[in-house]
Amino acid sequence: MTLPMVVPAPDLPARVRIHEVGARDGLQNEKSTVPTEVKAEFVRRLADAGLTTIEATSFVHPKWVPQLADAEQLFPMVRDLAADLPVLVPNQRGLDRALALGARRVAVFASATESFAKANLNRTVDESLAVFDPVVRHARDEGAHVRGYVSMCFGDPWEGAVPVPQVVRVCRALMDMGCQELSLGDTIGVATPGHVGALLAALNAEGVPTDVIGVHFHDTYGQALANTLAALRHGVSTVDASAGGLGGCPYAKSATGNLATEDLVWMLRGLGIDTGVDLGRLVATSAWMAEHLGRPSPSRTVRALSHKDTGAPEEQ
Amino acid sequence: MTLPMVVPAPDLPARVRIHEVGARDGLQNEKSTVPTEVKAEFVRRLADAGLTTIEATSFVHPKWVPQLADAEQLFPMVRDLAADLPVLVPNQRGLDRALALGARRVAVFASATESFAKANLNRTVDESLAVFDPVVRHARDEGAHVRGYVSMCFGDPWEGAVPVPQVVRVCRALMDMGCQELSLGDTIGVATPGHVGALLAALNAEGVPTDVIGVHFHDTYGQALANTLAALRHGVSTVDASAGGLGGCPYAKSATGNLATEDLVWMLRGLGIDTGVDLGRLVATSAWMAEHLGRPSPSRTVRALSHKDTGAPEEQ
Repeated sequence: MTLPMVVPAPDLPARVRIHEVGARDGLQNEKSTVPTEVKAEFVRRLADAGLTTIEATSFVHPKWVPQLADAEQLFPMVRDLAADLPVLVPNQRGLDRALALGARRVAVFASATESFAKANLNRTVDESLAVFDPVVRHARDEGAHVRGYVSMCFGDPWEGAVPVPQVVRVCRALMDMGCQELSLGDTIGVATPGHVGALLAALNAEGVPTDVIGVHFHDTYGQALANTLAALRHGVSTVDASAGGLGGCPYAKSATGNLATEDLVWMLRGLGIDTGVDLGRLVATSAWMAEHLGRPSPSRTVRALSHKDTGAPEEQ
Repeated sequence: MTLPMVVPAPDLPARVRIHEVGARDGLQNEKSTVPTEVKAEFVRRLADAGLTTIEATSFVHPKWVPQLADAEQLFPMVRDLAADLPVLVPNQRGLDRALALGARRVAVFASATESFAKANLNRTVDESLAVFDPVVRHARDEGAHVRGYVSMCFGDPWEGAVPVPQVVRVCRALMDMGCQELSLGDTIGVATPGHVGALLAALNAEGVPTDVIGVHFHDTYGQALANTLAALRHGVSTVDASAGGLGGCPYAKSATGNLATEDLVWMLRGLGIDTGVDLGRLVATSAWMAEHLGRPSPSRTVRALSHKDTGAPEEQ
């Protein structure tokens, strides 16, 4: 298998933790609902490929995310794997369901913009934070680890560019209620590297240290990996990615959605940054899932490594 | 039209010159041959979108690149445009043909590896450099500007990772024979950002200044834009890209080949780096060409901006 030459770059983290979101963020955006046993097999294969944090499912009401309505059945099938398996919880009811099944890591999902809070949560930003506050406190009391997602950290389809202080305020509120980790979501993929650096610096200035920050980039405009590189240069060492690039862009075939885990692993491997991931196994897993879903993976690395070399390439 | 928020990053060039290769590197890799008038219209539209360097065609023997066999007809149709229009010349005969038509900028194409020199040029590396030497000198004598392409600067499908000193030697030879500009080609797309920085530093150490260096990345593994960012951080301000991501990967539908100019422009615009390109016009041009070619553009930015927003995005 072709692999990149390892040439480290200065001032990057020695190790990156990949927060794998394919089984949740990926599959929840699929038109079809994947059978529970296939989801479980997907999570098992991801763990087998060396991923240590695999977001497994979501305990939102099935009415909102029917693709993940089997959370209750799925979670027990994978919970004994040797990986952290965070799950999404939208409210106290979701948290109770997750904790009852033995979940040790949960995530709440806030919005940096009023428009998306209204569209996705049917609440204002502050109302949604008020809902999350007791959820996060309860989760912490129960010894669970809590991640706070923040959507629309860079741009919003209704509001355009999102002011950095507005994002910082939501992040600060999530930290204050007890979140131990944040994930900065570029939900519509409009971020560029300078914007990433500016948000990270502003968060640091407000007392949010880099080591609690994860980044969650979408590849809608092809920027996800360049933005990831900018975040790494700032010291970020937690990166969200989706095996095979699953999810995130429901309107296009071969969706240009989440950063593909394989494309990320390729870059990190070339940079000599340890992830623990076996790229060959991961590509095989995503190729298997793409076959199940009946469409090619949007990950460029998956496509390249799933094809046999046809001999001489074209001239440059 | 959605555009990124402008947030500059430190230590990047104020302006980047895009060397547009879609009409040559893109179309020569198409299965079908595009009619000459469509090619001319493509080049005209690219100029109209603000691109100032547009590689127009190649004066190689039609036997090798039948898609560009109409160079003699095409070049006069576009040569009066307000843009630099470099053309590829493989040898003295090609140079003579180009100069006779009024070409003022030519490019020769060398290989960093013996395997690709043999496959693409049917010569050893040194034999091909010996062929180029009088071509470059003659071009310079005639007042033409000469670019030297170097293929396989990072990896080679037969030889694997390519040692940096081997690339530096070929670059140095091209500079010594009179090339005023180099283009470092990651022909099979395997480079990662540390490798990019290492090659640029090694070239500088051998007396090749950054301001004569262009970078030519392929997106086979999704790395092209991250590698471009690494090159910009090194001070590189000439970046090759292909409108709509045309070309470069003949074995896959919606080829993952050249860096798409639109994805590059998106990043540079977000970084506040001037390119002179009107992104809307460029996207329209690539969408038009994709329609002509009968397949969607592999550029993520083209796809995103060619679709109407469908309202609320999915939750993060």
